[in-house]
Amino acid sequence: MRIDQLDTPALLIDSGAFDHNLATMSAALPGSRLRPHVKAHKCTALAHRQAAAGHIGFTCATIREVEGMAAAGLGEDLLLANEVVDATRLGRVKGRVTVAVDSENTIDAAAKGGVKEVVIDVNVGMPRCGCAPDQAVVLADRARARGLIVRGVMGYEGHAASLDDRSQREQLTAMAMGLLTKAHADVGGDLITAGATGTYDINTWASEIQAGSYILMDTAYAKLGLPFRQALSVLATVISVSSFGYAVANCGLKALGMDHGKPDIAGATVIKVSDEHVTFIPEQPVAVGDRINVLPAHVDPTIAYHERMHLVGEGEVLESWAVDLRGW
Amino acid sequence: MRIDQLDTPALLIDSGAFDHNLATMSAALPGSRLRPHVKAHKCTALAHRQAAAGHIGFTCATIREVEGMAAAGLGEDLLLANEVVDATRLGRVKGRVTVAVDSENTIDAAAKGGVKEVVIDVNVGMPRCGCAPDQAVVLADRARARGLIVRGVMGYEGHAASLDDRSQREQLTAMAMGLLTKAHADVGGDLITAGATGTYDINTWASEIQAGSYILMDTAYAKLGLPFRQALSVLATVISVSSFGYAVANCGLKALGMDHGKPDIAGATVIKVSDEHVTFIPEQPVAVGDRINVLPAHVDPTIAYHERMHLVGEGEVLESWAVDLRGW
Repeated sequence: MRIDQLDTPALLIDSGAFDHNLATMSAALPGSRLRPHVKAHKCTALAHRQAAAGHIGFTCATIREVEGMAAAGLGEDLLLANEVVDATRLGRVKGRVTVAVDSENTIDAAAKGGVKEVVIDVNVGMPRCGCAPDQAVVLADRARARGLIVRGVMGYEGHAASLDDRSQREQLTAMAMGLLTKAHADVGGDLITAGATGTYDINTWASEIQAGSYILMDTAYAKLGLPFRQALSVLATVISVSSFGYAVANCGLKALGMDHGKPDIAGATVIKVSDEHVTFIPEQPVAVGDRINVLPAHVDPTIAYHERMHLVGEGEVLESWAVDLRGW
Repeated sequence: MRIDQLDTPALLIDSGAFDHNLATMSAALPGSRLRPHVKAHKCTALAHRQAAAGHIGFTCATIREVEGMAAAGLGEDLLLANEVVDATRLGRVKGRVTVAVDSENTIDAAAKGGVKEVVIDVNVGMPRCGCAPDQAVVLADRARARGLIVRGVMGYEGHAASLDDRSQREQLTAMAMGLLTKAHADVGGDLITAGATGTYDINTWASEIQAGSYILMDTAYAKLGLPFRQALSVLATVISVSSFGYAVANCGLKALGMDHGKPDIAGATVIKVSDEHVTFIPEQPVAVGDRINVLPAHVDPTIAYHERMHLVGEGEVLESWAVDLRGW
């Protein structure tokens, strides 16, 4: 099928950029040095490509992601990098499942649910989950007392990973990983799991990096000057052209994650996004029926709106992949 | 099933508020005076409730919504209030389908696709679709020349509908409807279709109002002082409590439309939303495992992330409805 036969809006992955991103990351962080985060793409077909590139272990953010990855034959080493208060569904997954814990309740939930392995989630500076660094050993002891295997520690330097300035990213990452390696010394285990696309080549303390966005990228991450290319766009159709100088395409709030702001359109200024529309001022005239590429500001919540992604190259749809890990 | 047995995050509809909203709107705009917009809820089960309250005609924003409504037996009078450049799928729908047109291309697409009826979409002040008011009659003539029935005019005063100040809403609505009624005098037809929840009792020029949000509401519309109650919330579970004073629940960017800003949590201040988390400072202590209600800022893009909505009352799940009109 040719790209111009797709109904719009449609999520496109540029195969050249995709291959470049896959190869660049695999060269920098080969094999188990990378634990790709599937929350960015929610797509087992894409995860199979990452596995084929040598990354066998994966990071998940939801129970549904863990279940879906295992069902797709990718359950060799799944880390749910998130806390759950009911691990019953996790305990039923056919595969190796490790879950993050940061409290007595979440440890007890893991044990009760039949999960066998955990990592101690340590807060390293971002206001989200994770225990205080000096509490990690207390929780590890409790987990072991409950019969759980403690594989190590986890800490997410998300407050560093999104900073545009590399020296600031380096500084905050070093501080965060100072806390995490200290906790690891107390806790033990093989894993120091941390990191993100924005710190993939900065975080040398972690035993594995949980990057996800690198494979598709978005306009927010594009500002960091990383060697990964924008692979993801939303193909849209111009449905209206105004005599006031603006045009409207059929790609709106239900096709785009908006928490990082408006999307970009090459050669145009985006002025408004509504439920099913993007209004933009093109530098050169456009006509009703023209197709444009809309670049999302944030990849993860964009993809979660779509049923499918299309891998494309040279005008052709090469493969169509289900976004099969949506929901919870 | 009791509410506390639901996996989280889960979309809840308070049945008391829902019934109030349905009755209040039906009293204000009975029968065909309201053409409920299904884009707000994307749920045929909910639309059946609106039909049972007397509203037989519906407004849609996407072809998928039109197809799904007809397939659910709600195809008596469906208006696609949006432009399409390929109406082939619309022409195949078993039901009465009317589509908005604002250009020669979209008129030709309607005729070619086998759609029989159109409304002329007129720009009444918001930078989106719609022809210039004085071009409406030219387009109506062309549509009739192509064998299409022109049912009237459409104009969306969206720039007025979201203003907090009622007198400003009234002023801009009057100006917008001045343009639309003038175009209608030129074009003819039975329909002057316009309006929104924010102007449902202000827009007395339109023959029918396209309100959608009224039935569930959100925190953005709550600021307008309308007689509709917040019926929609996202049920979430506290998964982490920090010694720094904040807590984290499992309701993030993939469970919330964020274009109108952060959600609200009663008795708490929301400080951060990430992919699967909301971090908040509670006024009273919360514990891991507690359940909280998160109120979205914008109903439409929130619902589009969810597979199901649950109608709840007195601690019980009364009905579970599929969000079956998602996608395109």
